[in-house]
Amino acid sequence: MDEYRGQKVLITGGLGFIGSNLAIRLVQAGASVSIIDSLAPSCGGNTFNINPVRNDVEVTEADCCDLDLMRRLVRGKSHVFNLAGHVSHTESMKDPFNDVRMNCMGPLTALEACKLENREARVIYSGTRQAYGRPDVLPLVETHPLRPVDVNGVNKMAGEWYHIVYNRAYGMWTVSLRLVNTFGPRQLVTDARQGFVGLFIRKAIDGEEIQIFGDGQQLRGFNYVDDVVDALLIAGINEKAKGDYFNLGGPRPFTIQNFVESLLRLTGRGSFRIVPFPEENKSIDIGSVYSSWAKYNFLTNWAPRVSLDEGLAHTVEYYQRNKSHYW
Amino acid sequence: MDEYRGQKVLITGGLGFIGSNLAIRLVQAGASVSIIDSLAPSCGGNTFNINPVRNDVEVTEADCCDLDLMRRLVRGKSHVFNLAGHVSHTESMKDPFNDVRMNCMGPLTALEACKLENREARVIYSGTRQAYGRPDVLPLVETHPLRPVDVNGVNKMAGEWYHIVYNRAYGMWTVSLRLVNTFGPRQLVTDARQGFVGLFIRKAIDGEEIQIFGDGQQLRGFNYVDDVVDALLIAGINEKAKGDYFNLGGPRPFTIQNFVESLLRLTGRGSFRIVPFPEENKSIDIGSVYSSWAKYNFLTNWAPRVSLDEGLAHTVEYYQRNKSHYW
Repeated sequence: MDEYRGQKVLITGGLGFIGSNLAIRLVQAGASVSIIDSLAPSCGGNTFNINPVRNDVEVTEADCCDLDLMRRLVRGKSHVFNLAGHVSHTESMKDPFNDVRMNCMGPLTALEACKLENREARVIYSGTRQAYGRPDVLPLVETHPLRPVDVNGVNKMAGEWYHIVYNRAYGMWTVSLRLVNTFGPRQLVTDARQGFVGLFIRKAIDGEEIQIFGDGQQLRGFNYVDDVVDALLIAGINEKAKGDYFNLGGPRPFTIQNFVESLLRLTGRGSFRIVPFPEENKSIDIGSVYSSWAKYNFLTNWAPRVSLDEGLAHTVEYYQRNKSHYW
Repeated sequence: MDEYRGQKVLITGGLGFIGSNLAIRLVQAGASVSIIDSLAPSCGGNTFNINPVRNDVEVTEADCCDLDLMRRLVRGKSHVFNLAGHVSHTESMKDPFNDVRMNCMGPLTALEACKLENREARVIYSGTRQAYGRPDVLPLVETHPLRPVDVNGVNKMAGEWYHIVYNRAYGMWTVSLRLVNTFGPRQLVTDARQGFVGLFIRKAIDGEEIQIFGDGQQLRGFNYVDDVVDALLIAGINEKAKGDYFNLGGPRPFTIQNFVESLLRLTGRGSFRIVPFPEENKSIDIGSVYSSWAKYNFLTNWAPRVSLDEGLAHTVEYYQRNKSHYW
């Protein structure tokens, strides 16, 4: 990743789970990193997340929908990692307007700022496989129709397509990666707003009972955050990825029960119980879902390298060591 | 359409092109019609549009994004025709944020108001074939992937999917119809914000030269507004349409040059010239595009009944008679 040495990079949502892992890696790679993050309670930003590089990054605590501010921030940047947003399915159903703000207006503001100030900036977006909704066939491939099942999925789909449109219309370097169940250090673990994975990790460390909705046999392509960071960095340097969208995924799918069992083995504490889907979540349940990342792999050589067990071991170790900052 | 007799119906954007034609038909069918329309200059609302029924409809001039107001307006309504929005491709690229407001926030506000106050209301949305972007194969069918090429297309796609999500999540009766090039009385004709069709009609009546971008051989499925109104009304009474999305279209596709020639024959004035696509519009040009409406036809029996020539004759006659209100 020598291409990032000396580059000026902006990360929206850079105090969040994926943004902070990316920021740390970019600082290690010799980039000059700026972060904008609203630290909105609903998002999952945490200043401790960037603790290892806290003196090496410039942090602006502000709203990514502020176009004037964004115009100033994108000037002179080589890359904008457009990661700020909401990821909660259920929150998006409770307050759909806020989800539009965070997931449509926010990403669009970064794009528009680049269009107005710096069309050379490479804009990399964190999309989601949620945009696919219930899969017709597995694994999900990029040609699968997008049929989101919740407001968050709709808005993340829109967020992705703004990027594609800005590539087609203005020739800008934009890429969208469709993330799956990412896990690892620096994720929000107090509740399930950033996915059930974070919550499960906290419960396992606390020795609590984990409730698995459904039958536990739903497959997921758990993806360790370091691999996702690799994928994001590649999207900003490999020209073949420009203007396109790609699935990410883990080395191979595991059932949610597999995931929980691995986790409990590592913590040596906690338990799990299979419970029926709660009525209010049933309609947005999507069963088994995992993605083929062959398109990205063939084009860029990216592949997930961290196994589930290895990733979980790092994760549990991180939270045990830094519990006070996340509990 | 006897099912609408005595029904209380709300139309968002009811002073606009399609909304006003729908309002007139609903009044004729014995419905009690309420309209909310912002009369925003960028939209195309025109109080003269509802002139034939001006004493029979209740008009609220306000912003459809006002949730409190919308909650009051949807109470007791049997149907909400969720038509308010922007349709301009080019405006959406100039001010993408306003397009999000009009095409994401607006339709979502009506849905959320119904969710909170009146889940029995049937919500019919005017989607667009623009969400498909450049077609892989013609005619467009509903299984064709959605790959919008401008911000307006992205937001209209999102607007449609909110409706689908609200059906799946809350069991609400929602339907989206994907409109094509609708034409007819009450369309904005001062410029191309509601499509080139309106502008061409004004120019033909004024005896001006019509510029056709490209080669004039691009096919379009011109759809007369009365047929579109039929389709909207059916969507609110045929249970089989509930929770689904459907293409509309004209009886058969015509080239843009065919359309213009028919138009000029009717007005007996004006001329046309084929000119290359202007640089700023090139990237959002989509070539030939027309839709199969077989899905809707097989399910509901709807079919477009008005030929291009017949529709154009009504249209030209209308504008010649009411020129002062549209020029």
